[in-house]
Amino acid sequence: MSLKVIAFDADDTLFINEPYFEETEKKFCGIMENYLSHQSISQELFNTQINNLPLYGYGIKGYVLSMIEAAVKISEGTLSVSSIQKITDLGKELIQKPIVLLDGVEQTLNKLQGHYKLVVATKGDLKDQQRKLHNSGLGHYFHHIEVMSDKKAIDYQKLLKRLDISPSEFYMIGNSLKSDVLPVLEIGGHACHVPFHTTWAHEMVEHNVEHENFSEIEKITEILPLLLPKSNLL
Amino acid sequence: MSLKVIAFDADDTLFINEPYFEETEKKFCGIMENYLSHQSISQELFNTQINNLPLYGYGIKGYVLSMIEAAVKISEGTLSVSSIQKITDLGKELIQKPIVLLDGVEQTLNKLQGHYKLVVATKGDLKDQQRKLHNSGLGHYFHHIEVMSDKKAIDYQKLLKRLDISPSEFYMIGNSLKSDVLPVLEIGGHACHVPFHTTWAHEMVEHNVEHENFSEIEKITEILPLLLPKSNLL
Repeated sequence: MSLKVIAFDADDTLFINEPYFEETEKKFCGIMENYLSHQSISQELFNTQINNLPLYGYGIKGYVLSMIEAAVKISEGTLSVSSIQKITDLGKELIQKPIVLLDGVEQTLNKLQGHYKLVVATKGDLKDQQRKLHNSGLGHYFHHIEVMSDKKAIDYQKLLKRLDISPSEFYMIGNSLKSDVLPVLEIGGHACHVPFHTTWAHEMVEHNVEHENFSEIEKITEILPLLLPKSNLL
Repeated sequence: MSLKVIAFDADDTLFINEPYFEETEKKFCGIMENYLSHQSISQELFNTQINNLPLYGYGIKGYVLSMIEAAVKISEGTLSVSSIQKITDLGKELIQKPIVLLDGVEQTLNKLQGHYKLVVATKGDLKDQQRKLHNSGLGHYFHHIEVMSDKKAIDYQKLLKRLDISPSEFYMIGNSLKSDVLPVLEIGGHACHVPFHTTWAHEMVEHNVEHENFSEIEKITEILPLLLPKSNLL
């Protein structure tokens, strides 16, 4: 390997994210529980989100708009306006959640810096992601923060073009097999999966990955022996 | 001048945008007209948008969330859920508006390509802007599309670092003195103002610009004689 760039996914790779969405969804189900079971409300919200993905993309604002749309539908138009307000307030609360770094993240970045160009490659809303990276205090480790509207093979190809490197010089680390691993392997890059304990249904894939450019680790610090000479690990 | 990069703002510089927002706002005022005058509704919406800017940033989804919030407030919580649905529908309509290029844009890009690196530097929502650029059919002219969460001096400095050029090699063209001209002049770049017939109140500044790196033109084609040798203008 002659790697140049190590790219990190952000949400649930550098800091927690999905648990905040799950907490918000639970509160949303609470607001709507006079109409349907929590399970049916979640299903309706998920369907609305997926339908809206081509229009809204990823991120909190689209999620809030989908909650409102699902709420109107679930209540068959009988919802009170105060419930709508509760939903928009849930969104503002979600936007302002504190950034909690995952174990070992700072140590990993600290050890890798100077050896490789470190970048963030994250899907989502530009404003949300820039705010989170800024509040994480990790910004100074990264040469480049790329917020991508999607993470398909073609999106990674554009990123590599922008970074002016070949696929074999690119190593991606993230918690989503679907978004962080499979498309990177597809274009000839290296990828490392570091699973988080919970994954959004839309990101789940049934897949056993076997590939010479693929690694799977349990904690982010475990990439250090894969990427650094032994003398740097002390 | 030894220019390397010519950067174009997108909304109301390459294609129309603000008239679509104005049309949407008019419809929003129509939905709410039993409560207040159009003028007072617009004022309340504007105040809500500005208050939400630090949380939501620019773009259609934040605009829709602000319309919903303003509507709840204006109606003092008495709004019907069907009106909320009308507002979310207005947002989806706005997202799907056709892209209408401004006069001379394609001709200008066509003449400039090959002479400079052409980029788009636009504020707003990542998903919205990428969709619009894609639908505009102009994508192939541009080496790079930069969606920025803001357009202050520091944001332009980051862009120049990313493009690996000095300020004197950068020329920005756009319809907003506040976002496209003043911060670029501040960091030592070149800027050209091409006013559009209507400007969002938040983008308006009272300013007479006098600066050796500044030009003002009426139509975008008028930058060609400023940027190309005479022999290329035929």
